[in-house]
Amino acid sequence: MLEIAVPSDVAAELAAIGRFVAARGWVPATSGNFSRRIDEGHAAVTRSGVDKGNIRPQDVIAVPLSGPMPAGASAETPLHVARYRGDPGIGAIVHVHTVAATVLSRAGAAAGFLELEGFEMHKSLAGVTTHEGTLRLPIFANDQDTQGLAERIESALGAQEPVPGYLLAGHGLYAWGATMVDAQRHLEGLEFLLQCSLEERRRDR
Amino acid sequence: MLEIAVPSDVAAELAAIGRFVAARGWVPATSGNFSRRIDEGHAAVTRSGVDKGNIRPQDVIAVPLSGPMPAGASAETPLHVARYRGDPGIGAIVHVHTVAATVLSRAGAAAGFLELEGFEMHKSLAGVTTHEGTLRLPIFANDQDTQGLAERIESALGAQEPVPGYLLAGHGLYAWGATMVDAQRHLEGLEFLLQCSLEERRRDR
Amino acid sequence: MLEIAVPSDVAAELAAIGRFVAARGWVPATSGNFSRRIDEGHAAVTRSGVDKGNIRPQDVIAVPLSGPMPAGASAETPLHVARYRGDPGIGAIVHVHTVAATVLSRAGAAAGFLELEGFEMHKSLAGVTTHEGTLRLPIFANDQDTQGLAERIESALGAQEPVPGYLLAGHGLYAWGATMVDAQRHLEGLEFLLQCSLEERRRDR
Amino acid sequence: MLEIAVPSDVAAELAAIGRFVAARGWVPATSGNFSRRIDEGHAAVTRSGVDKGNIRPQDVIAVPLSGPMPAGASAETPLHVARYRGDPGIGAIVHVHTVAATVLSRAGAAAGFLELEGFEMHKSLAGVTTHEGTLRLPIFANDQDTQGLAERIESALGAQEPVPGYLLAGHGLYAWGATMVDAQRHLEGLEFLLQCSLEERRRDR
Repeated sequence: MLEIAVPSDVAAELAAIGRFVAARGWVPATSGNFSRRIDEGHAAVTRSGVDKGNIRPQDVIAVPLSGPMPAGASAETPLHVARYRGDPGIGAIVHVHTVAATVLSRAGAAAGFLELEGFEMHKSLAGVTTHEGTLRLPIFANDQDTQGLAERIESALGAQEPVPGYLLAGHGLYAWGATMVDAQRHLEGLEFLLQCSLEERRRDR
Repeated sequence: MLEIAVPSDVAAELAAIGRFVAARGWVPATSGNFSRRIDEGHAAVTRSGVDKGNIRPQDVIAVPLSGPMPAGASAETPLHVARYRGDPGIGAIVHVHTVAATVLSRAGAAAGFLELEGFEMHKSLAGVTTHEGTLRLPIFANDQDTQGLAERIESALGAQEPVPGYLLAGHGLYAWGATMVDAQRHLEGLEFLLQCSLEERRRDR
Repeated sequence: MLEIAVPSDVAAELAAIGRFVAARGWVPATSGNFSRRIDEGHAAVTRSGVDKGNIRPQDVIAVPLSGPMPAGASAETPLHVARYRGDPGIGAIVHVHTVAATVLSRAGAAAGFLELEGFEMHKSLAGVTTHEGTLRLPIFANDQDTQGLAERIESALGAQEPVPGYLLAGHGLYAWGATMVDAQRHLEGLEFLLQCSLEERRRDR
Repeated sequence: MLEIAVPSDVAAELAAIGRFVAARGWVPATSGNFSRRIDEGHAAVTRSGVDKGNIRPQDVIAVPLSGPMPAGASAETPLHVARYRGDPGIGAIVHVHTVAATVLSRAGAAAGFLELEGFEMHKSLAGVTTHEGTLRLPIFANDQDTQGLAERIESALGAQEPVPGYLLAGHGLYAWGATMVDAQRHLEGLEFLLQCSLEERRRDR
């Protein structure tokens, strides 16, 4: 398979979301990664170990959605690729490490999900038009074998995605959308819901 | 009814309050909205779904205070319009989604109000000259029928407004004032009181 | 008594401390005030109601350390003046409204003080050279009669000041120093100690 | 021993890390200090009492790794020097005062360590390739005799360093790395782990 270049507007979009989340402290210690679909067969993904608040063009790599990962790809690239393969409507994916996501993903790891009920912020998620009802955010066990982890996640998400994101236990939050604007809105909405849920659990325990 | 344009200074005021609250993380995921009275019959209101930290002139719409809502108006526009109709002294309204407002509005939904007692910050509210006494911040149940919700709110607020704001359960905080400067001061004062109250409830439970 | 003008470097110092504390959210809703001694008989004090993150020269007023307050002086000016009269070594005073100061001042109001023990941050206070020992931060009941309040405070502080600051219950934190640099360091040190103390009280209750 | 000058790129690196941590509020009241190895016999260390968000070239001093400290060196310089002597692989050291580090270091002082288990953020530490297993962050009693303290710390760290950092009880966090980039990543990773741990202790107590 021929390698393709990362379009400059795609690299610029990844740099912009990086500045946004880094300013909020959501990608400490070079953690987190971001991606955007380039075309039917490729996605652009940030390399590991780079400062996510200052992503340069060389910090982004084009990866094929099928076939082996190129050298230099982040260890979490399979999680991104599997989502693009699993849902053709996804155009962008963001992954962050926040305190709320980390702590709640550990607290809910045994249950395998976190329930969020009755928040107006539900409406920040594409297709949700009311605060009524319950959202169920999946939580998956963390695994350094990200290829196997990606397969288990895609199998579990199945045909239905209750929310455009999931938690990895002790690890962080993934969120996606049709565009980077949608992915960022979903990220902000889910993180806000996590912060509220964490605060309520402090009070209710 | 003839449509009117939004004066450029009004749009600039809405953009400025948007930058202020966005910098504090109070309008995540494009949530929140802001408005200002234009004249006796109209108000300028932000459209829904726009980045509140970067409000452009085209993101603000002029709406009539009586008669049907124009196409493109935010679903929460009726809550703004009803306040301008209910109190001719109101010149500006701000609505935000903060963690403290969301969590406390849920905790106090059954009671229907939140009591705040003995804070010097009471004096940030127009007409309050002492820390002594108790403020009662109303909490209304959330409802996607914002027209019906607006009517219930105005009926409840009645002749007396104990504080220049209210909470919507699981949703957020509304605050208003004679000018945008007053509305912003009331917003900051109420949010500070909510943060203190939330912290005290952590300790007292 | 002849009125005197506020020297421009004094106004600039007050504007700078204002930007510093406003950026941290410590003066919400135009709360807080700052002052600096001008000469043996006068101090410059911020007017009330101004945006403390954007203090302009006209937002600062020169007040005499004896005699009646000029028109336009903040209601809390007597608390500043009394400190300058009570301790000739004081060159600058800062007053802020933080969540930690407000909540802890209410929790400790009956005791009349807050004890801080064993923190390295003790050493940020002038004259303290060890983390060993206990600091006792006084807490005074709030009072809208600031002239009477100032007299009670000065009488209580007496000859000995255990720390360069005090709390007003439900109101906020005052801190001072020989220079504005010292006053700011004391403010930062005390606020850090209050945040640690609040966190420990959450855990220990 | 001849004095040597601090190379300008070293001073610039110390100024940069200072701006980074000051923006996060991790060096309040002029607390904290930073250093970098210059050569086999010297390190550059920030002077005490300077604003760590605005480190100027004259705020950095070159100190010998053996022999007496020069006049003007920070009282905590022996802690830096001992680390450079104890581990020739260390190129940079950062020391900060955060609420999480301060509170957890006091809570765990009797145990002498803080255990962190199962976080993906473990992988931010050099040489750690999995979230599985337990990290043990040492906690040492604070002591104003920093020379004696440094000797006790080096003796305890011994041949094995479970993590590239330690806590001083009631004082703060030290972190180091082969380069300043590594030291900063370790600092951010450890502080994130401390924040998560503090939040979990709030819930679990």
